[in-house]
Amino acid sequence: MRIFIMGVDGYLGWPLALYLARKGHEVGGADAYLRREWVDEMGSQSAMPIKTMLERRKAFEEIFGNQLWFRKGNFRDYSFVSECLQNFKPDAIIHLGEMPSAAYSMIDAEHCNFTMVNNLVGTLNLLHAMREICPETHLIKLGTMGEYGTPNIDIPEGFFTIEYRGRKDTLPFPRQAGSWYHWTKVHDSNHLMFACKIWGLTATDIQQGPVFGTRIEAMGDDERLLTRFDYDECFGTCLNRYCAEVVIGHPLTPFGKGFQKRGFLPLKDSMQCFTLAIEKPPQSGEYRTLNQFEEIYSVTELAKRIKKVGKELDLNVDIRNLENPRKEMERHYYNPDNRNLLELGYKPSHDTEDTIREILTDLIKYKKRILPNVLIPCIRWNGTRKKMEYIKK
Amino acid sequence: MRIFIMGVDGYLGWPLALYLARKGHEVGGADAYLRREWVDEMGSQSAMPIKTMLERRKAFEEIFGNQLWFRKGNFRDYSFVSECLQNFKPDAIIHLGEMPSAAYSMIDAEHCNFTMVNNLVGTLNLLHAMREICPETHLIKLGTMGEYGTPNIDIPEGFFTIEYRGRKDTLPFPRQAGSWYHWTKVHDSNHLMFACKIWGLTATDIQQGPVFGTRIEAMGDDERLLTRFDYDECFGTCLNRYCAEVVIGHPLTPFGKGFQKRGFLPLKDSMQCFTLAIEKPPQSGEYRTLNQFEEIYSVTELAKRIKKVGKELDLNVDIRNLENPRKEMERHYYNPDNRNLLELGYKPSHDTEDTIREILTDLIKYKKRILPNVLIPCIRWNGTRKKMEYIKK
Repeated sequence: MRIFIMGVDGYLGWPLALYLARKGHEVGGADAYLRREWVDEMGSQSAMPIKTMLERRKAFEEIFGNQLWFRKGNFRDYSFVSECLQNFKPDAIIHLGEMPSAAYSMIDAEHCNFTMVNNLVGTLNLLHAMREICPETHLIKLGTMGEYGTPNIDIPEGFFTIEYRGRKDTLPFPRQAGSWYHWTKVHDSNHLMFACKIWGLTATDIQQGPVFGTRIEAMGDDERLLTRFDYDECFGTCLNRYCAEVVIGHPLTPFGKGFQKRGFLPLKDSMQCFTLAIEKPPQSGEYRTLNQFEEIYSVTELAKRIKKVGKELDLNVDIRNLENPRKEMERHYYNPDNRNLLELGYKPSHDTEDTIREILTDLIKYKKRILPNVLIPCIRWNGTRKKMEYIKK
Repeated sequence: MRIFIMGVDGYLGWPLALYLARKGHEVGGADAYLRREWVDEMGSQSAMPIKTMLERRKAFEEIFGNQLWFRKGNFRDYSFVSECLQNFKPDAIIHLGEMPSAAYSMIDAEHCNFTMVNNLVGTLNLLHAMREICPETHLIKLGTMGEYGTPNIDIPEGFFTIEYRGRKDTLPFPRQAGSWYHWTKVHDSNHLMFACKIWGLTATDIQQGPVFGTRIEAMGDDERLLTRFDYDECFGTCLNRYCAEVVIGHPLTPFGKGFQKRGFLPLKDSMQCFTLAIEKPPQSGEYRTLNQFEEIYSVTELAKRIKKVGKELDLNVDIRNLENPRKEMERHYYNPDNRNLLELGYKPSHDTEDTIREILTDLIKYKKRILPNVLIPCIRWNGTRKKMEYIKK
């Protein structure tokens, strides 16, 4: 299949290009390198050293024998998006090209507006361009499990059938996002659903949990194929950030009481799931939602697992809870479905501790690249900006 | 009270300024005159002649004795919004300043993106500015009944309590909007709910049905106080557009089968309801939803009522159904609540036919301003643009 990756320079986009090429697909992509700029704006850098797209493409061609079709450009520009589709002629499009940080969107009005416009306009341009150029192409779009929030009932996959005052209907499951960024993903989901309804587009909306990991098999030992690994308060998701902390002897810092539960998955499982979604498309004209996670952990459970693996590697892990910069429930019911992916054939790797070991081992090699001053968050959901304090026990 | 109206030059904003001034409130407002530009872009004009804001303010001062505090500017500009709040120091803000047309948002990617950015960024700027400058001020924000779509169950006011797989929760009612414009209102609702949650802002979210009417009492006989009246395919809502058609001897044109039901309300009822929401605010920190409509009619029932009143005025009314440019259900269940406003003291005027008579009488005087070539829609929800045909019986 010809598969077009929007955001191919990112944490997920780059390994997905490798994973799909290894499986024999023809891969193309586009990126504006914004993630590199945002992490730079945070005063941080990827812990794993990454190459420029030019060097990446050279390595890609050497190893897989095919060129990686690539265009540099911004998805907020309609003509750029439509030219990509016209020229690459994809069978499937996987859209990972959005601003992915909750904290970044909460900095101030400017960052909030940037996030909203960047994510929504990029996706709306894509939907319009698909309608015009390739309405039969399957769109796989990255959303987040964070769209659902933490309701006091089970979380289905996108829709649920309910009875209310004696009548029944199947409706979109209500979303309760926890940051402006998370809301952009909710809005995107609604836009996909609407575009499928009015234009007959075909889409898979992936509600993904936090991903962790430094590598996938297709990278082999080639350092040029490494993907980025962020640990700053905006672009480091919690498990990855904890690992970076542990490696440099910094306390591991869960927010608040640490009983928040989320559905996590290793990087390689994320690749497996995206590929299943691509290779097993929904019916033409269907809008399909997949909840994409492997196992549910509380933040404290994760911290304990990292501590255990760290001990085996002679890392002395101190867990110190921080004030919570977010406004979120710290103790809550959490029971999301993920049957759809299992039915498509997803085989969970169930080796969280092995993956943590792999991350820590990789990071030890590059520990000098981990800057301690970006680890403690200062962006607070109440609109102020001040380093969080440790919670006294 | 000091009340700040965003979009004070518009169809609702201008009469609301008069209505509130008549009730003794101090009124301020801002506008960028975009509605005038958009209607111009459609090749149309207001059927009722309207004055410039300069002339309007002069008349306002003459009649009410107070100045109408006013700033010209764009709500997409954060510094403009925050300067307005800093200088006017409102007790309540009523936000009517958005692009209000479904069809306009469906023209193409450019108009879709404009609608999305204009409406969302304006409201996000307002929320951020309120947090910074006046977190105690009550925000009243105009949404639309169209946010809910037409589910097969009753429509509550914003939230509902449901049981699902044996557990209970109170959740936002799922929205199923029917155009990019309608989705902007859904996103705004979510943003208001979120801002109240994280910043303790206080907001009333008004889900309003289509408004009809040419005048309110506070205008008296002063032609300088008239509000605009649109009838083009984008900015004329259905009852108003039908009246414009009838007055120039054009067929009245329901879309499709004409069994679509909506909750309508006369302009004066809309003013009464906004004022109730302003004068009876929710608890501090509360996010409150009011469904604002008077009576539910199908489009065909409305057409018949207009025909009846037209006959009394010697207008020969021919009803001819048009192909439906929209993708919507034409026969559906529709049972929305509107208890909240009734409990606040809303007294429905229940004189639809009198209001239709008033509209027709006003429009007869200005019938030369009604341009027949903008009456038949050509913006289709499938992305094409071609004049709709009459449906053969």
